[in-house]
Amino acid sequence: MTWYQNSGKDSDIVLSTRVRLARNLRDFPFPNRLDKNECRKVNETVRDVLLAGDDSLFYTEMSALNSYQAVSLAEKHLISPEFASDSTGRALILSKDEDVSVMLCEEDHVRLQVIYPGLSLKEAFEKAEQLDSKLASSLNIAFDDRIGYLTQCPTNLGTGMRASVMLHLPALSQSTAISRLAATVAKLGLTLRGAYGEGSRPTGDIYQLSNQVTLGISEEAAIQNLQSIAEQIIAQERQARQSLLKDDVFIDKIYRSYGILRSAHMMSCDEFTSLISYVRIGACAGLLDVPVEKLTYLLVKMQPATINADAGEKYTSAQRDVIRADAVKKALE
Amino acid sequence: MTWYQNSGKDSDIVLSTRVRLARNLRDFPFPNRLDKNECRKVNETVRDVLLAGDDSLFYTEMSALNSYQAVSLAEKHLISPEFASDSTGRALILSKDEDVSVMLCEEDHVRLQVIYPGLSLKEAFEKAEQLDSKLASSLNIAFDDRIGYLTQCPTNLGTGMRASVMLHLPALSQSTAISRLAATVAKLGLTLRGAYGEGSRPTGDIYQLSNQVTLGISEEAAIQNLQSIAEQIIAQERQARQSLLKDDVFIDKIYRSYGILRSAHMMSCDEFTSLISYVRIGACAGLLDVPVEKLTYLLVKMQPATINADAGEKYTSAQRDVIRADAVKKALE
Repeated sequence: MTWYQNSGKDSDIVLSTRVRLARNLRDFPFPNRLDKNECRKVNETVRDVLLAGDDSLFYTEMSALNSYQAVSLAEKHLISPEFASDSTGRALILSKDEDVSVMLCEEDHVRLQVIYPGLSLKEAFEKAEQLDSKLASSLNIAFDDRIGYLTQCPTNLGTGMRASVMLHLPALSQSTAISRLAATVAKLGLTLRGAYGEGSRPTGDIYQLSNQVTLGISEEAAIQNLQSIAEQIIAQERQARQSLLKDDVFIDKIYRSYGILRSAHMMSCDEFTSLISYVRIGACAGLLDVPVEKLTYLLVKMQPATINADAGEKYTSAQRDVIRADAVKKALE
Repeated sequence: MTWYQNSGKDSDIVLSTRVRLARNLRDFPFPNRLDKNECRKVNETVRDVLLAGDDSLFYTEMSALNSYQAVSLAEKHLISPEFASDSTGRALILSKDEDVSVMLCEEDHVRLQVIYPGLSLKEAFEKAEQLDSKLASSLNIAFDDRIGYLTQCPTNLGTGMRASVMLHLPALSQSTAISRLAATVAKLGLTLRGAYGEGSRPTGDIYQLSNQVTLGISEEAAIQNLQSIAEQIIAQERQARQSLLKDDVFIDKIYRSYGILRSAHMMSCDEFTSLISYVRIGACAGLLDVPVEKLTYLLVKMQPATINADAGEKYTSAQRDVIRADAVKKALE
C-alpha cells in the first residue's frame, strides 16, 4: 500500500513524512557536467546496486514517461517538479508501494527518498539508511571526513539529508499564528511553507515542515529536532481546532463542504483541495464518518496530472473537473 | 391536504392559483368607517352565514393569534401582510385544508379567497363562486347594476375579483426575458411581480401573475385572459429551461444546491429559497429524485414565522437558521 492509502501516527494532522538523502559517486562529475551517455552510465550503475536482490523496486528512464505521468509522480511527492520537467539523462527507481523513490541524475547523482504516512521520521530514516548502506557497500560515494557527504549545492553538504513532514494546519491558518510559527521555526533551522499552491495561504492549508541545516549536525539530531518541533505544532493545531469546533459557522462550513463534495457536477482542483480540508477536520473531529486515509487518497488522486495518468488520457481541464467531481462523489457516497 | 402538500396541473412551473373576491355588506359602512364593535357585528354576520352547515370552516378573531401565527398565515398566502400586521376589529374564516380563507374587515368587509395547487383557475373560481352564492343568498351585498360589486378601493370595483398564479421562472429570470415579459403583460391588463423578497430579482425566482382589470369585464373573461397568458409564459419558461439544462455550469449549480440543502448546519431563509429554486428545476427535469410537492411544502414551511408558529416558539433568527437547516436535511434525506 502507498503512503496515501494508509494513515499513521498523528494522521489527524500529519499526512506524510519524507526523508531524502543526496549522494554522489566519487568517480563521476556532478550531473550538470555529464552528457546523456555518462548520465546513463551513472544511472545504470546505481540501478544495478539497488535492484540487486530487491524485486520491490523497478527502474525507468524518465524519457519513457509522458509529461503527465512525470508530473503525476511530482504530485505524489515521489520526484521533484524540476525532475518531472526535463527527462534528459534522468532515470527513476521506484518501489511498487511508492514508499521508495530514487531520482537519478537530478541535481545530484542519487536522490534517495522514503515517504511514509503520518509522523514516522525514525522509520523513514531507518529505511533510507538501509538503502544508503546498500549503495555505500558497493559504490564509491563522495564523502569528506571533515565535511561529510559532498553534494552539488552547498546547502546540502554534510548529511545530505532533507527530512520533512506534510502538515494539515487549517486551524492555525485561520489566524496569524501560522506566520509567527513560520518565523519561529526559521530561527530553529527549519522551514515551514505551503505544500500546494502559491500565495499567502496555501490551498487546503497543507504545509511542509523541513530541516534546513545539513552541515555540522548528525542525522539523528536533525531528525530529533524536526520531530520535537513537529510535535509542538501538532499540539498547537489540535488546541486551535478545539476552539474552532465551538463555532457554528465553522461547523456549518464543514458540513457544507462535505455536501458539495458529494454532489457537485464539476470541480476544480483548487476548490476540491479547499473543501477536502474542511472535511478532513470534520472527519478527525468525529463529525463526519469518513476514514481520514480516504481523504488523503483523494487529495493525491484528484490532482490534475494524476487524473490523466490514471486514465492514460490527456484530458482538458474542463473534462477533468467533471471526472474529479464524479470520482469524489462516488468515493464519499 | 393543503395546496402546499399537493401538486397540480403544470406544477413544474405553477406553484399555486388563487382567486379572491372582495364583497361588502350594503347595510354597513366600509370597515375604515367602523368601530371595533361594528366590525365584530359584520364579522359575526358573515361567519353565521358561511359556517352554517359547513364544518370544514372555522372562525377566529385575529386578536386571538400572536404575531408569528398571523405572519405565518401571510407567508402561506392565506391572508394579506397588512391583515397580519393589525388585528383590530378583524377576524378570519379558514378551512381545515387551508384552501379557503376569508378575511373579515380588511379593506372590504369580506375578502374571500380560494387557493389551489398548480394551474387551476377555473376550479378555484368555481369554489369561490359557491361560497359567494352562499353569501348572496343570505346577505344584502353591495352591488350596483351598472358598475358591479362595490368595494372600498375603486381598483376593485366591478367583479371585485383578483385572480393570480404563482410561477417559478428561474430560466426566464436568467435573461432579460423576464422584464420584457412584465412590460408585455402590463399592456394586457396583468401584473407580473416577485412573490418573495424585494429588489431586481425576487428570491427563488418566484413570481405572481395577476389580473388588474375588474371593471367592464366578466369574471370568466378575466380568468380566461389570465389562463391563456399564464400558459404562454409556462411554455416560454419550459423552452428556456431546455437551453439552460444543456449548460454544465447550470447542472453543477443544481447538484450543488441539492448537496448544500442536504448538508448545511445553518441556513438563512433567503439562501434556502434560492437553493430550493435550483433543486426544483432539477427535480422537474428528472435530474434529482425529489417530488416537487415536497419542495413546495418546504418552501412554505421554512419561512420564518411559520417555523415559529409550527413550534409555538419565538425563536431568534440564528436559532431558526439551525432548525431550518436541520429540517431541510431530514426532509431531503
